[in-house]
Amino acid sequence: MSKKKIENASKLQIIPMGGLEQIGMNITAFRYEDSIIVVDCGLSFPDDDMLGIDLVIPDITYLQENIDKVKGFVITHGHEDHIGALPYVLHELNVPIYATRLTMGIIEHKLEEHGLLKKTRRKVVKFGQSINLGQFRVEFIRTNHSIVDAAALAIYSPAGTVVHTGDFKVDYTPVFGDPIDLQRFAEIGKKGVLALMCDSTNAERPGFTASEKTVGRALDSLFEEHENSRIIVATFASNVDRVQQIINTAHKCGRKVVVEGRSMVSIIDIAQKLECIKIPENTLIDIDQLKNYPENKTVIITTGSQGESMAALSRMASNQHRKITIGKGDTVIFSSHPIPGNEKAVTNIINELQMKGADVIFQDVHVSGHACQEDIKLIYTLVKPKYAIPVHGEYRHLIAQSNIAKDLGIPKENVFILTSGDVLELDENSAKVKGKVPVGAILVDGLGVGDVGNVVLRDRQHLAEDGIVIVVFGIDQESGQLTSGPSIVSRGFVYVRESDKLIDDATDLVYDELISALDKGIYDWNKLKNIVKDVLSDYIWKKTKRRPMIMPIIMSTND
Amino acid sequence: MSKKKIENASKLQIIPMGGLEQIGMNITAFRYEDSIIVVDCGLSFPDDDMLGIDLVIPDITYLQENIDKVKGFVITHGHEDHIGALPYVLHELNVPIYATRLTMGIIEHKLEEHGLLKKTRRKVVKFGQSINLGQFRVEFIRTNHSIVDAAALAIYSPAGTVVHTGDFKVDYTPVFGDPIDLQRFAEIGKKGVLALMCDSTNAERPGFTASEKTVGRALDSLFEEHENSRIIVATFASNVDRVQQIINTAHKCGRKVVVEGRSMVSIIDIAQKLECIKIPENTLIDIDQLKNYPENKTVIITTGSQGESMAALSRMASNQHRKITIGKGDTVIFSSHPIPGNEKAVTNIINELQMKGADVIFQDVHVSGHACQEDIKLIYTLVKPKYAIPVHGEYRHLIAQSNIAKDLGIPKENVFILTSGDVLELDENSAKVKGKVPVGAILVDGLGVGDVGNVVLRDRQHLAEDGIVIVVFGIDQESGQLTSGPSIVSRGFVYVRESDKLIDDATDLVYDELISALDKGIYDWNKLKNIVKDVLSDYIWKKTKRRPMIMPIIMSTND
Repeated sequence: MSKKKIENASKLQIIPMGGLEQIGMNITAFRYEDSIIVVDCGLSFPDDDMLGIDLVIPDITYLQENIDKVKGFVITHGHEDHIGALPYVLHELNVPIYATRLTMGIIEHKLEEHGLLKKTRRKVVKFGQSINLGQFRVEFIRTNHSIVDAAALAIYSPAGTVVHTGDFKVDYTPVFGDPIDLQRFAEIGKKGVLALMCDSTNAERPGFTASEKTVGRALDSLFEEHENSRIIVATFASNVDRVQQIINTAHKCGRKVVVEGRSMVSIIDIAQKLECIKIPENTLIDIDQLKNYPENKTVIITTGSQGESMAALSRMASNQHRKITIGKGDTVIFSSHPIPGNEKAVTNIINELQMKGADVIFQDVHVSGHACQEDIKLIYTLVKPKYAIPVHGEYRHLIAQSNIAKDLGIPKENVFILTSGDVLELDENSAKVKGKVPVGAILVDGLGVGDVGNVVLRDRQHLAEDGIVIVVFGIDQESGQLTSGPSIVSRGFVYVRESDKLIDDATDLVYDELISALDKGIYDWNKLKNIVKDVLSDYIWKKTKRRPMIMPIIMSTND
Repeated sequence: MSKKKIENASKLQIIPMGGLEQIGMNITAFRYEDSIIVVDCGLSFPDDDMLGIDLVIPDITYLQENIDKVKGFVITHGHEDHIGALPYVLHELNVPIYATRLTMGIIEHKLEEHGLLKKTRRKVVKFGQSINLGQFRVEFIRTNHSIVDAAALAIYSPAGTVVHTGDFKVDYTPVFGDPIDLQRFAEIGKKGVLALMCDSTNAERPGFTASEKTVGRALDSLFEEHENSRIIVATFASNVDRVQQIINTAHKCGRKVVVEGRSMVSIIDIAQKLECIKIPENTLIDIDQLKNYPENKTVIITTGSQGESMAALSRMASNQHRKITIGKGDTVIFSSHPIPGNEKAVTNIINELQMKGADVIFQDVHVSGHACQEDIKLIYTLVKPKYAIPVHGEYRHLIAQSNIAKDLGIPKENVFILTSGDVLELDENSAKVKGKVPVGAILVDGLGVGDVGNVVLRDRQHLAEDGIVIVVFGIDQESGQLTSGPSIVSRGFVYVRESDKLIDDATDLVYDELISALDKGIYDWNKLKNIVKDVLSDYIWKKTKRRPMIMPIIMSTND
């Protein structure tokens, strides 16, 4: 798009830079004239075909190119898909961060790990409070979610007001703090809202999302039912309210509690410091103290509810945990639901735990942190936006929310399902996608950010599928004669002893081809490599119906 | 175990050789004195960590060692996890096959593809009919399942009767044929049953499994609702009843039907020949005729309901299907439920289809083919076995069924959760696991059966994670001097242009180490390789936090 259009002076621009094609990597820029603010800065986890990749972060070229205009990051809550890319992005873009208390606590822990804490400006914002960022004013509105201190945002600009819900649910009886500030949604709505950007995660689910408190009641009766067992509860590390409720139930039963798993220990630590969790005295014990109590007077709260292979629960299930062994007399409760894609990993752990003799409970000890259809209708009805822009979710979820918006009477042409990079220009009179900014997914592998691209991934997939066959041979640069080899080695292709004859025959074949090519006067190394590749890959396909990567290496003996 | 125990003369032995630790690979041997019969011979699909593997078949060493005793394979139904390993196993073990009509039709198609049809003895068995196999008599009992012609087996031996349900559901109103023969279950039960081996797949689910006919009603109303759309229905290739119902609904609406997807076309073809499906005249059309009809007068029934990347639906969704393009005005119905592990693949296709503008329906157009808890209780109550041996399912499902059996009053010590390879010896007086036979999972990759083992898989995983770095150098065997290299190439590690300096520095480092080692008189090739591996892997880890496979290759220039 032309510079001119982006710079359009009197309209608001909404520019999602991720999060619309996938779960995760939420980041959206809002621009009005020379002011840009950015809502959230999340990572996403690699797809199955991104072999070896640790995490994925958004491309922020657009922000870098407009660095002078960027006023700061406004963060809705402390989940990885909303804050996880901050340390990487702040390396490139040193702008201030605004967030509520617990959210900021979690961000600060991250920044510290990356050595960025000192050089990053930060401001903790209270619910109801507004901050001025250039031409924008941003108000933080209390919501409920599966993490404490989640906020919706009212983004005021001269072109109108946008309400962004963040990830949210409507919980009339939350465990910590107050219910979502529905009155404030109504008040802002009454004054007129240009656009609502609403969480779509559960937009396919009818009805209402149950209160977090219902899980507490389920835990109470499960603890009663299993009063003779040691109890292990697996849940999400960041769900402080859930941990609070497990601790409450444990305390009522006179059980001591161990918190296990690095990420959970660190978040509970932060939450305790910020008084977002209240742990009764003498309830938490160290893992080494477990042996001092009868087993049925202890509870272990642990990470690993998604079947993550390195998490504490998985190590317990496979006998690789240094301190905790699962056996008969243990009750393991999954206070969670598998995130799509994790079903098989979770089921594997359930099997493993049961094989060890544990009683495993995995149904009805969890509620979602996202609004279902009726909750979404409530927010729309309070906010009464002119435009609807469904966010947070895969395309199917955005579609589901757009259907809700239309059912509620928002005209079809005022509902926008955006694509990352779209520049939506809007004001009271019109809204239209006007061009694109560059966006993309940057792969992080170890210390490398962006150095693994499609070529490397394709090679990894190829290697994963059928392995590699390497052919080395030496050629004398002067005489053009074969001076050594060819010798063939393979990895991930076929077990050596099984394939002696295959490799021997292939070596003979390559030798003959090379001699014949050199006799014909073919000395070009690339040509020789291709000849070797072709003959070898044909031969291997014929013999095995496999297509390993073939890699000819020529050593010049005149180096 | 000692030979003597296996040969125990007066007891029945039940030897599951697969299917108890995973979904799939169902195969169970029954032995009485010198007679062995084998129930089912299935494959399983590779786990996520079995990179590049096409399918997995059972180890049949035990059967090979006792080939003189094996009377035949008795097959319950025509799903891959019950028949898929037959072509591989029959290569090693030429014994007859017994199955019902459609099951045999599907098996014969498979055998033909593998060139085994002529040399395999086969007998089609009718429901109610018995066959004599050595000391055994086996009766086929009609059941219902998500494939036509599924059978339970009553296995009569001098030590007593075993009822094996196969995969089953209780359907009072099946689409094709009669309901499950509950009277016969009762009759056999009345006479006294030693053991019941019952399908556990849905043993965690309360209630009853709905009739296949309910899907027909759902289809009727969906077709009515979308009368202006072209309709595409994705379902399981082998669910002939489902295809029948889709065709029935299409016919009622005056729509023409195309069947798409190789496996579905072939099964429908077999079913038609055997009159297991009734297709009204002039309803089926060829895919090329689609253009001759208004779009809303056509239906495409297709494979790919599990998100399989090579199936027809997936190719349509990604614009790679040669004849069918998805767009606005298409309604795509998933008449299926994702099998655990396929959730993400299915959701990706739903997104793709919606992005193309299709209306996608994926809820409530499917029923399970397996019995839920109340159905399982019904079978137990009719059969009244002395021993319960839950089968078909992961450990969690076997546990769930064993809990049902205990609730129904079967004493704990009479419920057996077996492990593959267990030899359960039983008669009226006792039942006990007495030893083990060799079992295992044999990996099939291309034409290779069993040549990819743990070493190769580990290498593939390593390659997939971080790629490979190859270091080649030449050493003169006489002088022990470095004659060429080292030169370093990589694949799947990092994109070359990004890593020029990294590779250059690493090359220098390896060169220095090699020279210094050779100077010290280290000529042993394995030692030199280890030196190179260590220095290079340390360096790469320090610089990138990655651990590619390091592969030093030494070329002797005196070859």
